[in-house]
Amino acid sequence: MLYPNNIKKTHKTFINYANRGMDLEELINETNEYYLEKDMALIYKKPTPIGIAKSSFNEFGRTIEKAYFKEQSTLDYNGIYKGKYIEFDAKETKSKTSFPLANVHKHQIEHIRNVIRHDGIVFLIIKMNGLYYLLLGNDFINFIDNNERKSIPYEYISTKGFNLIEKYNPPLDYLKIIDNLLLGGHNYGKEVKS
Amino acid sequence: MLYPNNIKKTHKTFINYANRGMDLEELINETNEYYLEKDMALIYKKPTPIGIAKSSFNEFGRTIEKAYFKEQSTLDYNGIYKGKYIEFDAKETKSKTSFPLANVHKHQIEHIRNVIRHDGIVFLIIKMNGLYYLLLGNDFINFIDNNERKSIPYEYISTKGFNLIEKYNPPLDYLKIIDNLLLGGHNYGKEVKS
Repeated sequence: MLYPNNIKKTHKTFINYANRGMDLEELINETNEYYLEKDMALIYKKPTPIGIAKSSFNEFGRTIEKAYFKEQSTLDYNGIYKGKYIEFDAKETKSKTSFPLANVHKHQIEHIRNVIRHDGIVFLIIKMNGLYYLLLGNDFINFIDNNERKSIPYEYISTKGFNLIEKYNPPLDYLKIIDNLLLGGHNYGKEVKS
Repeated sequence: MLYPNNIKKTHKTFINYANRGMDLEELINETNEYYLEKDMALIYKKPTPIGIAKSSFNEFGRTIEKAYFKEQSTLDYNGIYKGKYIEFDAKETKSKTSFPLANVHKHQIEHIRNVIRHDGIVFLIIKMNGLYYLLLGNDFINFIDNNERKSIPYEYISTKGFNLIEKYNPPLDYLKIIDNLLLGGHNYGKEVKS
């Protein structure tokens, strides 16, 4: 990517939350490119916010000399689909039994509530146990509001979530699920609201 | 802000496109915060994309050692208003007679076309001659498609654009204009389409 491969490899063993979802992120980026090419939707990943500690100037402009990554207070992906606002995030966990809520920051939870209230389409794409699930913002918030737990049991995700089957192209066709929800055709054997 | 004041001051004379719209950006950020507080809309500035040339790892994670700013291929601000997708950019020019189209990158122009086609609300907020104008994406694209010129005459902007009067709070109430357009109440003495 933007930094030499050896950096990535050498430091593979560090717990790096930003890189955890790398493969999932690539699948989603390819899916978004497919949607863009087919003119189905405009969905982009937001750049990771950084805090600049030191910068310098030369004839080409400002160069960053020292910076660190900051937390995104919204979700990573947003855009437009059929005139509607859409926003989501990709999360991955190695746990087989439950999805730790620490994966979603406080500001992001608040933001999910806001998007729901403002009539946007909001969800998480969760990779867990080698499978991909689309969990609607409503179902995510319902769990948080009705449980004291610090993680969501896998059973809740596999029951409430919509299974996304990885394909060749687009790799993770999440808009197909959104389409069915928009049309009211919940033919995935699941209800939109709990 | 994030870097010491003296850096900004010392290098004030450099032509820095990213900082040109600083004051305008602050007005818009404050406006967006107002909308957020009043729960009227969710509109955020996207982080500036960067290219990382060098990074290192320590116990806190990855630190950026060298990076440069990249061009945004979409517009700087996006979000949701009344369930609708909204996206815009803030541009400023010192020219009194015309707005140089070099201010809007090729990818951004393409993106504006895309958002229009996907039924989103898209516009530019232009500061020129000490005044603020909201120029709809449609009017911006119409000009480009029907002119060979490399800049938009001020007269076009002041005629087609909607004048935004700077106020105390919110400083630049652009949603008021969008509201009138959404309601079909074009009571600004101007037509939405040319």
